[in-house]
Amino acid sequence: MQGAVLYGPRDVRFEAREVPTILKPTDAVIRISAACVCGSDLWPYRGIQAITQPTPMGHEYCGTVEEIGSAVKSVKPGQFVIGSFFASDNTCPTCQIGYQSSCQHRELVGGAQAPLLRVPLADGTVVPTPGVPADHLVPSLLTTSDVLGTGWFAADAANVKPGSTVAIVGDGAVGLLGVLSAKQMGAERIIAMSRHESRQKLAREFGATDIVTERGEEGVARIKELTHGIGADSVLECVGTQESMMQAIQSARPGGFVSYVGVPHGVELDGEQLFFSHVHLHGGPAPVRRYLPELIKLVLDGDINPGKVFDLTLPLDQVAEGYRAMDERRAIKTLLYPNGNK
Amino acid sequence: MQGAVLYGPRDVRFEAREVPTILKPTDAVIRISAACVCGSDLWPYRGIQAITQPTPMGHEYCGTVEEIGSAVKSVKPGQFVIGSFFASDNTCPTCQIGYQSSCQHRELVGGAQAPLLRVPLADGTVVPTPGVPADHLVPSLLTTSDVLGTGWFAADAANVKPGSTVAIVGDGAVGLLGVLSAKQMGAERIIAMSRHESRQKLAREFGATDIVTERGEEGVARIKELTHGIGADSVLECVGTQESMMQAIQSARPGGFVSYVGVPHGVELDGEQLFFSHVHLHGGPAPVRRYLPELIKLVLDGDINPGKVFDLTLPLDQVAEGYRAMDERRAIKTLLYPNGNK
Repeated sequence: MQGAVLYGPRDVRFEAREVPTILKPTDAVIRISAACVCGSDLWPYRGIQAITQPTPMGHEYCGTVEEIGSAVKSVKPGQFVIGSFFASDNTCPTCQIGYQSSCQHRELVGGAQAPLLRVPLADGTVVPTPGVPADHLVPSLLTTSDVLGTGWFAADAANVKPGSTVAIVGDGAVGLLGVLSAKQMGAERIIAMSRHESRQKLAREFGATDIVTERGEEGVARIKELTHGIGADSVLECVGTQESMMQAIQSARPGGFVSYVGVPHGVELDGEQLFFSHVHLHGGPAPVRRYLPELIKLVLDGDINPGKVFDLTLPLDQVAEGYRAMDERRAIKTLLYPNGNK
Repeated sequence: MQGAVLYGPRDVRFEAREVPTILKPTDAVIRISAACVCGSDLWPYRGIQAITQPTPMGHEYCGTVEEIGSAVKSVKPGQFVIGSFFASDNTCPTCQIGYQSSCQHRELVGGAQAPLLRVPLADGTVVPTPGVPADHLVPSLLTTSDVLGTGWFAADAANVKPGSTVAIVGDGAVGLLGVLSAKQMGAERIIAMSRHESRQKLAREFGATDIVTERGEEGVARIKELTHGIGADSVLECVGTQESMMQAIQSARPGGFVSYVGVPHGVELDGEQLFFSHVHLHGGPAPVRRYLPELIKLVLDGDINPGKVFDLTLPLDQVAEGYRAMDERRAIKTLLYPNGNK
């Protein structure tokens, strides 16, 4: 089979890879219906996060179960499933509290930009849909695997409630689906921080009531202007840089809630500054497994259409162009169909 | 009048100070019934926090209203009152949300280690007791002004609930009253981290179920051992150093809650490490005003006896010895009575 492999900065190749097989009795192998490029894939793509060897890429996936290990009980070949980028047993004390992405036996899932994918701990990781979904639902279902699950966690971790005033730092796909999530959770006012017209448009479609184009201190000042001088109740930090983190913390009101869901790169928080900001801070790798059943249902019921976040669709063999387009911000998010699927 | 003034490291003097008067119509002047030395007074006392000029000390206070400004409506001369170290208007949007210590018009109260004290924004800052309380209740009432209010906020900010497993980093007076607060909020298991026998004893009296004497990584390992390998639901960080902060964060379970209530000194948090710890983090200067009515009632009803935290009582003119005893850890907390009061 052929899949995407990252060799170094801006060097993604579509090349022959070993066919995944069942390695442990708890594994499943999934035939990928659709995959995509994640904002977090851009960190190693841009060389900001070093890789030590050629690395199979992709961790967002949905598709049909091809094969299961002898211990797998909850899914069968032929079922359509969606799973998270962190495989989890879903039974350990940490999973039971709802933090499956810190599961005591977690494993990273990797190599989903390919026709087939091995998923460890299948029983605790993948969630089947009732029946095989219609093709037009696949992009939205795929988003539940990470980008929507992460945006949803951002809104949840930032304590978004009916009536909340919410600000979102970052207009990438996670930020935009953070807007959708905040809307779905009943936020009254949703301020998207974005300076790109196409992203502003999608933010409004997803429920943003205000757009702030300023960044840094000017952006913070603008948020304060819009919030009676005190800041937003909830701020979703969906970037992961020092600048975006400080922008988020300073945009929240005292006692407000700041979530952060992108792996921080080079972020250092000054204890005293954080102390006097009086914010609540919560984040980490999104425990997508916790939200999957609910998010899948919202998609299947037609309540949300997060698949709109894909503004570029390519056959898998053009994966390199998919990365390039996102790197150059020509695309918000690239959807990839294994060749022959579409 | 004579009061405590800090001149430099380990140089507290009891000397003549100007008598406080009403400077603004919203001020009140309080005749201090009892004052005390705060753990945070030790930062400048030890020279870790620089002072630029001789500084009147003390910010924990209770006493009788001596005089009020023309705009003060809620208290009258002769009433016994308790207030917070941050004066607040208690009406601005931030106060209304319960973060009075970030009030838009907040002012630090200072110079309470003296017979008389000016309190700004009296209507929003001080809370009167019903009648003048009996002498034996004064120490416990005094604690509500800061040390108990701060320990209470620590427990609240760390989301302590009935049944919680709680760890407390720091066996100073705030940490010990964090134990009392956690007990009062229904925590099932309360692990106090302390290596001092007298403090361990008081922690047990206040409700600690376990004592951990190890620190740093060993302390964290011990907490994990006691909590099914995952860490505590809630951790109260009551010190303010890099070591104590990391000990607290690492002692919490994924998805757990870490509060921090002592001004962090030289603390830097690594964004990526915090991210993968998956904890909730909340802290800041305790919004004591929010809790004062409830805490005063608990004391007056005899439900709690936080005044036990004072293990050294001195007349105010011996204030320098009060600081020394705490600095040398001979005393947990020093209670000071203006001369003639007792």
